[in-house]
Amino acid sequence: MKFGGTSVADIDRIRNVARHVKREVDAGHQVAVVTSAMAGTTNRLVEWCREAAVLHDAREYDAVVASGEQITAGLLAMTLEAMGITARSWQGWQLPIYTSEAHATARILDINGAELIARFKERNEVAVITGFQGVHRETGRITTLGRGGSDTSAVAIAAAIAAERCDIYTDVDGVYTTDPRVVPRAQRLDKIAFEEMLELASQGAKVLQVRSVELGMVHNVRIFVRSSFDKPEDIDPHATPPGTLICDEGEIMEQQVVTGIAFSKDEAQISVRRIEDKPGVAAAIFVPLAEANINVDMIVQNVSADGATTDLTFTVPAADFDRAKDTLNKAKSTIGYERVDGATDVTKVSVIGIGMRSHAGVAARAFQALAERRINIRAITTSEIKFSLLIDSAFTELAVRTLHSLYGLDKA
Amino acid sequence: MKFGGTSVADIDRIRNVARHVKREVDAGHQVAVVTSAMAGTTNRLVEWCREAAVLHDAREYDAVVASGEQITAGLLAMTLEAMGITARSWQGWQLPIYTSEAHATARILDINGAELIARFKERNEVAVITGFQGVHRETGRITTLGRGGSDTSAVAIAAAIAAERCDIYTDVDGVYTTDPRVVPRAQRLDKIAFEEMLELASQGAKVLQVRSVELGMVHNVRIFVRSSFDKPEDIDPHATPPGTLICDEGEIMEQQVVTGIAFSKDEAQISVRRIEDKPGVAAAIFVPLAEANINVDMIVQNVSADGATTDLTFTVPAADFDRAKDTLNKAKSTIGYERVDGATDVTKVSVIGIGMRSHAGVAARAFQALAERRINIRAITTSEIKFSLLIDSAFTELAVRTLHSLYGLDKA
Repeated sequence: MKFGGTSVADIDRIRNVARHVKREVDAGHQVAVVTSAMAGTTNRLVEWCREAAVLHDAREYDAVVASGEQITAGLLAMTLEAMGITARSWQGWQLPIYTSEAHATARILDINGAELIARFKERNEVAVITGFQGVHRETGRITTLGRGGSDTSAVAIAAAIAAERCDIYTDVDGVYTTDPRVVPRAQRLDKIAFEEMLELASQGAKVLQVRSVELGMVHNVRIFVRSSFDKPEDIDPHATPPGTLICDEGEIMEQQVVTGIAFSKDEAQISVRRIEDKPGVAAAIFVPLAEANINVDMIVQNVSADGATTDLTFTVPAADFDRAKDTLNKAKSTIGYERVDGATDVTKVSVIGIGMRSHAGVAARAFQALAERRINIRAITTSEIKFSLLIDSAFTELAVRTLHSLYGLDKA
Repeated sequence: MKFGGTSVADIDRIRNVARHVKREVDAGHQVAVVTSAMAGTTNRLVEWCREAAVLHDAREYDAVVASGEQITAGLLAMTLEAMGITARSWQGWQLPIYTSEAHATARILDINGAELIARFKERNEVAVITGFQGVHRETGRITTLGRGGSDTSAVAIAAAIAAERCDIYTDVDGVYTTDPRVVPRAQRLDKIAFEEMLELASQGAKVLQVRSVELGMVHNVRIFVRSSFDKPEDIDPHATPPGTLICDEGEIMEQQVVTGIAFSKDEAQISVRRIEDKPGVAAAIFVPLAEANINVDMIVQNVSADGATTDLTFTVPAADFDRAKDTLNKAKSTIGYERVDGATDVTKVSVIGIGMRSHAGVAARAFQALAERRINIRAITTSEIKFSLLIDSAFTELAVRTLHSLYGLDKA
């Protein structure tokens, strides 16, 4: 059971979390709980680090920001004990959760689940574990996993103790076919395959951290996204509660062609005009961008009409737009282009579904439907279970609603 | 160097602390720094624990409240690094600082200073260490030392690294002959012996935690109390700064007869009237009080005049007055007394000085001086280097000022 920052924002909410845990324990389940820091705490700690030193030592940053989860884990454990449930808190270094040495962006390497399993069996003890953090084996210093890392902690711990399921309690009650604020007829999915969720999360859906889904897929940890606002007393622990199960595609009986539609407005388009159509030009463009740590997403290059020059279009995060143009300017002589165009008022719409593997013409139907509504497609990329379209931001809602209906995702 | 909560209350003050540290490093000193939590932080954490569960698990309490020092240690280390000083933070479990398992009131058992000394020599690295906390060797769980424990941490670490001196930076600039708010002519002491400081701290002076002085005495760690409000730049690290050195009495050339006068208003007097003057009666009184966890301080019993009955007077903390009377009521039949009197408007005034060992009649002069001012003495106790008088609270200031002048402590 993993609870986010808003679910543990004060003592009353921590007590509510404890009641959720008690319900599962009373139902005979063995439970590990992963806690985030109280909402706002990590932001305040990060701000203090910025104030202390603009370029701060990442090892000290980790020691500071890891304290938030330590507080909530201790408070939750003592609340559980006061309810008569055997429980204890575990910090990353105590379990231990070993990670890489990449401070502030560490990756989990190894978790020893044996001690937890022994305590489940011997004492029916609930393990309350700090999310977001670990320890580096050689240096013995505290590491953190980066923002949203508690989801990843939860899935990794679920894998280490061979949990039946990893329940992510969050402020939404599941994964939807698309953002319900944009499409009121969006539906909650009962199940979604790991690969689809990975694409959804990567393409802008903010329910889960991408790495947690990757980890779930690799270790086959079934992840269940559910609401932390449901009253603990109203839930039957033996029935299937409302929520979305992220699982292996084999567990999903009737696979839809399209499962969901994601969109991201934080995109910027850059077109490099009249470059020579010869080997090495793409490298001349993308190597300097990579060195500037700019993440390039969609890349589209047409076969040149004249066999001599062509245009190359790609997207970058909107925040990196100016820096990307500067980088290209500096590399102009080595690349050899006529000019660089760009736009920041663009949106990437992604249509995702494992069914695309076996169904032809899925994308073609989208092109037609958008054309009928006179929505211009600036660029297209496709992968095995997804295609993405770059359109003008003004048409975002219209496009998403059109595609949502087109693929039969609207609620009855 | 140890800094209290008000000295690290925000990033600006932490930066000021870093400048104090830099001054010492620049002067060629090898430095370990002990930090408290930001002022207010520990109170808030304690309050959360109380809200979570009235009777909370002390192990979880410790995990929660230890987080405050972790934050300031990390912030100070990164601030030092930003100033170009090699530094790293150490939490109690990292060093490690091994303690007893008495959570929330743990005692330090062992600190390994070898790693710190090696880093002083090899890298001139400043050690920034969390005060107030440690770890229990067998359970691997975080422990805390009780309120004010950072003073004790600092002295223990100073002993472990064989430090030349342990500087306690605080909100006063040293130890005074008595409270300057009561006696404006009180003087800062340049030096005071461990034994004297121990008595002063035990008798109500709040400059230092009693245990830290005990530890300093046992391990002969010279403790220097100084102000954290002095501007770091104004201090010559090679000169003796303003402050009070707590040291072995051998280091104090000209020992005064009386060094200081402490007083405590948080006292209550209880008199048990007409008890039988026979063996076992004192035990019948004090065993039930001890079992009720009531701390009895001054005890006075006169030789009975009639050889049959006598009165017994003692003091307890004012907060325990009612509970103490209840306890005596319940034990009335086993004790066998006529009645119990009491008063809470009493003050204990203590006169302290190693010179009393070799000077006779020191206390007698006090009795005379107070009698001249018509101050009634309710009870008297004496020890080798101290005597204490119980008086009516109304006369506190007059009594302290009278004794301060009497023993030549007034500032010229």
